[in-house]
Amino acid sequence: METKKLCFASDYMEGAHPEILRRLLETNLEKTAGYGLDEYSESARAKIRAACAAPEAEIHFLAGGTQANAVVIGALLRPWQGVIAAETGHIAAHEAGAIECSGHKVLPIRQHHGKIAAADVRRCVDDWRRDGNRDHIVMPGMVYLSQPTEYGTLYSLAELEDINRACREAGIPLYLDGARLACALGCPANDATLPDIARLCDAFYIGGTKCGALFGEAVVFPKPGTAPHFFTVTKQRGALLAKGRIAGVQFDALFTDGLYAEAGRSAVAAADRIRAALAEKGYRQAVPSPTNQIFLSLDPDQAAALSQKVEMSFWENAPDGRVVMRIATSWATTPADVDALIAAL
Amino acid sequence: METKKLCFASDYMEGAHPEILRRLLETNLEKTAGYGLDEYSESARAKIRAACAAPEAEIHFLAGGTQANAVVIGALLRPWQGVIAAETGHIAAHEAGAIECSGHKVLPIRQHHGKIAAADVRRCVDDWRRDGNRDHIVMPGMVYLSQPTEYGTLYSLAELEDINRACREAGIPLYLDGARLACALGCPANDATLPDIARLCDAFYIGGTKCGALFGEAVVFPKPGTAPHFFTVTKQRGALLAKGRIAGVQFDALFTDGLYAEAGRSAVAAADRIRAALAEKGYRQAVPSPTNQIFLSLDPDQAAALSQKVEMSFWENAPDGRVVMRIATSWATTPADVDALIAAL
Amino acid sequence: METKKLCFASDYMEGAHPEILRRLLETNLEKTAGYGLDEYSESARAKIRAACAAPEAEIHFLAGGTQANAVVIGALLRPWQGVIAAETGHIAAHEAGAIECSGHKVLPIRQHHGKIAAADVRRCVDDWRRDGNRDHIVMPGMVYLSQPTEYGTLYSLAELEDINRACREAGIPLYLDGARLACALGCPANDATLPDIARLCDAFYIGGTKCGALFGEAVVFPKPGTAPHFFTVTKQRGALLAKGRIAGVQFDALFTDGLYAEAGRSAVAAADRIRAALAEKGYRQAVPSPTNQIFLSLDPDQAAALSQKVEMSFWENAPDGRVVMRIATSWATTPADVDALIAAL
Amino acid sequence: METKKLCFASDYMEGAHPEILRRLLETNLEKTAGYGLDEYSESARAKIRAACAAPEAEIHFLAGGTQANAVVIGALLRPWQGVIAAETGHIAAHEAGAIECSGHKVLPIRQHHGKIAAADVRRCVDDWRRDGNRDHIVMPGMVYLSQPTEYGTLYSLAELEDINRACREAGIPLYLDGARLACALGCPANDATLPDIARLCDAFYIGGTKCGALFGEAVVFPKPGTAPHFFTVTKQRGALLAKGRIAGVQFDALFTDGLYAEAGRSAVAAADRIRAALAEKGYRQAVPSPTNQIFLSLDPDQAAALSQKVEMSFWENAPDGRVVMRIATSWATTPADVDALIAAL
Repeated sequence: METKKLCFASDYMEGAHPEILRRLLETNLEKTAGYGLDEYSESARAKIRAACAAPEAEIHFLAGGTQANAVVIGALLRPWQGVIAAETGHIAAHEAGAIECSGHKVLPIRQHHGKIAAADVRRCVDDWRRDGNRDHIVMPGMVYLSQPTEYGTLYSLAELEDINRACREAGIPLYLDGARLACALGCPANDATLPDIARLCDAFYIGGTKCGALFGEAVVFPKPGTAPHFFTVTKQRGALLAKGRIAGVQFDALFTDGLYAEAGRSAVAAADRIRAALAEKGYRQAVPSPTNQIFLSLDPDQAAALSQKVEMSFWENAPDGRVVMRIATSWATTPADVDALIAAL
Repeated sequence: METKKLCFASDYMEGAHPEILRRLLETNLEKTAGYGLDEYSESARAKIRAACAAPEAEIHFLAGGTQANAVVIGALLRPWQGVIAAETGHIAAHEAGAIECSGHKVLPIRQHHGKIAAADVRRCVDDWRRDGNRDHIVMPGMVYLSQPTEYGTLYSLAELEDINRACREAGIPLYLDGARLACALGCPANDATLPDIARLCDAFYIGGTKCGALFGEAVVFPKPGTAPHFFTVTKQRGALLAKGRIAGVQFDALFTDGLYAEAGRSAVAAADRIRAALAEKGYRQAVPSPTNQIFLSLDPDQAAALSQKVEMSFWENAPDGRVVMRIATSWATTPADVDALIAAL
Repeated sequence: METKKLCFASDYMEGAHPEILRRLLETNLEKTAGYGLDEYSESARAKIRAACAAPEAEIHFLAGGTQANAVVIGALLRPWQGVIAAETGHIAAHEAGAIECSGHKVLPIRQHHGKIAAADVRRCVDDWRRDGNRDHIVMPGMVYLSQPTEYGTLYSLAELEDINRACREAGIPLYLDGARLACALGCPANDATLPDIARLCDAFYIGGTKCGALFGEAVVFPKPGTAPHFFTVTKQRGALLAKGRIAGVQFDALFTDGLYAEAGRSAVAAADRIRAALAEKGYRQAVPSPTNQIFLSLDPDQAAALSQKVEMSFWENAPDGRVVMRIATSWATTPADVDALIAAL
Repeated sequence: METKKLCFASDYMEGAHPEILRRLLETNLEKTAGYGLDEYSESARAKIRAACAAPEAEIHFLAGGTQANAVVIGALLRPWQGVIAAETGHIAAHEAGAIECSGHKVLPIRQHHGKIAAADVRRCVDDWRRDGNRDHIVMPGMVYLSQPTEYGTLYSLAELEDINRACREAGIPLYLDGARLACALGCPANDATLPDIARLCDAFYIGGTKCGALFGEAVVFPKPGTAPHFFTVTKQRGALLAKGRIAGVQFDALFTDGLYAEAGRSAVAAADRIRAALAEKGYRQAVPSPTNQIFLSLDPDQAAALSQKVEMSFWENAPDGRVVMRIATSWATTPADVDALIAAL
């Protein structure tokens, strides 16, 4: 079937990393237990625990990111609580109300290039605490952030540590959405490792769908028992995979020989080459993202012209009349793809 | 990794039918749109429409069965309505309260070998209608059944038509859970075809996970628009697959050259051979299932002894002190597997 | 306005006990804090604590019974849990799915004359515990019963103690719906006092609406903190009364000089006279209720004839072809009302 | 019991208008049907229909405002929709997440003195419509506003007509929260009558709790059938009053001889006298409210001093370091109360 030549619309346009397919093929006719109770899922868990330096971690494989967010947030919040998130956070803006559908308010706070600041978390919690009407108001019950953010930016280790402190002070858990975590881990500018994340977060997920897998996200609770009866909760939310081993085999492959970080590294390297060319040719970026997503600020004519040659994602109409378009690379982006794009710019 | 020799615990213990893996491999590096808007998903939809003789059908690919049930039922019911189901129906008994979690009551009615009768549907609706307090009671808002049922039994075409009539009379939709639909379609005893199902049901799903796919269920609304904004509803429930094409490719393969029905046929044929051997050796079946599941009624000692040799599924402790164990075959069950099982009996 | 002469359809047909209205009138123009933080609510709480011999009890005033049930059950259950109740229990049958609407399954168990048995609670919990698939099944998370029951019958103290033990063994809370608790407390056959109930239950409510108040139910948690942030939870569920003092004044009156139990006593005494007359005249009772509700089993002609003279409540069509009609008395039923009814029989 | 002398903390500190209590007393021992099916509720409905010039209107009596909002909004929205509201709207800020608890997102838009503008409603809807990702985003499904607003300000008739047009263009219903509607109707500055509101809104509620009743809000659907099965939905949400007639009698009294508007007029007149005195004495108002609420902007010392003499409501800490305190009058505020307050200023 035909596809557009220069296709940079998203990082989930291909299938899986060939190594993952190879392993699925290799193990295809083995018989294993269902629901993630199989040996491959166990092996993947062991490797993820090792990569996170979190030997006790409880790990569940879910199918997708919105699902992982809704199930984890629903499992960690009590009914009277809401979740603090950037006003541009994925759960606040682009999940069709999945969090509210499970009964909880998203408490939006301001953001800068997609990132929230510990000071704003503290202010949100303090405002609630000092409000004479606080018993009539949703209690901030956890903090959600994503790494990289919705705009491809990264939290530094220091920033994560500060947000972690704000959460500890408030007595609420910190949850990190790692839909594209490989692209953070594989980014030269990144200084927050998987063990850092496991040390600083109460829950997070390691994204598979956008980082080389056919589908699948690994939800990690560094301290076991953080979300009681999580298996049943995933079942209840329709998030339990009968053939859990298909996710297990994939994560087992991703966490063998550093494939996961490598998938991110390769995507970011491709984006870096594109960024350099864009700068050289005078294109303007809407956000200084260092990872695999590039947000171009184009005037409408420019946007239309470039869209003839390159499939990008429409992001938003900026208040200044310009259009923001997203270019995304993935583990599958080849040097030839990048060359062609640069030629088209 | 090691697995038990004779493994008949379920029909989701292997990966995917080799033809599916072949197609995933073949298409792996193509770039397509996300969220099921790709050419493979479209091709799969066209083939399913043809197989169902439902040229207008609206089709969505979801990841799993509990998810499909909860999303479809939640989309079809209004807040004041509940869903009629066999007291042993999957949604009533084995989905961890997924339907209630989305706000609706399951209205259990009696069953025989897992099947409900049109007369009982009519009685349930009439009881509500004639109840002076009906405005204080959950209104029966749809009917759920599965084909094959939880006990592997089949509705005849006449029975489905009668239940359809009961639903029409009541003005409520009929929904069919086809987690193992291939095993109905591939069963010699079956007389209800896919076009029959599409004609008689307002919604149904064609199960992939237990019928040859890695994962995935195809939700079919024979009349488009039956569930408005269903795309957004699936997103909100965490059921929208980013790489929707992975499900699309699988269903495209399943509905090419009759693979889907063949997968069922082969599983049922294996089960038939086992059933014949069981009968010959004097084993008792708890339910006369003609499909790929066999429910053995064993005394506890017998159950323990057989479990040494064969991995089965514990089903239930019967009131008569006997134990019900399930033997399940799949598209992947080989003649050698069956021979070995028969030898072990 | 005209009303039928002999009106025994329910126990919520009149306004409030005159003493309550007197107190509302007397305090009407005083200014107090809202949301139940006023002196009258505090005074009512103190009197209820004393009456319950539960000096630490946390007490909230809600508007109605279905609301109280849904809010308390929603507050005590975790997402993966359901509530055990008699299949005829109010929450199972007559609350329009309020419990399911808040995300939880009602787990029905068999009943006798509206009562559940400790043995069946134990069986329900054990069945879940011993089920190999229990992680796929709703966990029994609390027990609901009502005193008197839906059929006006009473649990003896011994029965309540046994159910309490079953709950302790299971580690789950016991909740008692006391919509008509005054009629239990005021019944000669009753041997379970308010202090017994406070000692044996983790939560219960003392019904006002059907026991002399304009509206209002007092939710009691004998141990404070049983349901964290309950104030906010009631607000979130729309159950927080802005003028909480209106409920407070009413319960303050009901728990002054024994008015609450007296309201029940008087209703039951009226019902006892009716029961004696019914027995004498050969009427058959469907259930041997000793409280303020009488369930007559009538043949359809008899039902129609009696309905000409007496307004009763239709209850149900019995399987034997007879009709069950309910006669209810209240604190407001006068000896003359009873005389007239007896004459009409 | 003792209360502070000068008490202006809220407009729900007293009981009911004496005329209401008189009618409750007068009708107390009559027997009527439950659940709002009685003659008094019918009479109140007839009078409200007349006052609204909406002869077909469907009217339900609920207990409180948060409840009315949650039940009506939940009944009008479909699962994929959210409700547009001022970011300061009661449902957005002060209802403990009641709307989210019922599964829907509040879509906040900017406000000026508590009011939203039709242009912003149009922008919100257009943004959704033109968003390429709109199927991943909550659809704006209705508009919520309150009259008076959270800050006591009023929409003019022209503004309401403009917002109505915006809703018609978008094809979504307009809902008006009239918790203090009497204070709008009784305000000299108001030009939107009850018939205007009934003509322009798809649903609204006429507040009783804050306008003279013990409790109760009259939900009005000018076109019957706007919210199907609303009776059952209120039952399911715990909002159905068993003794519905108690609300009926109150609204019957409120809509006899213009009592409702008079209750508002008298409260606003008292507030007007206070406003004049405040202006004269150089106090600053945070918001130019013309109704029964006055929002004073005080420096912290001033706030502390005045609080010694007058019980006000803390509203918020303003960004400029000043404190906003609310003074509220009610139908029960006497000229002597006002004199004493003015003397204390």
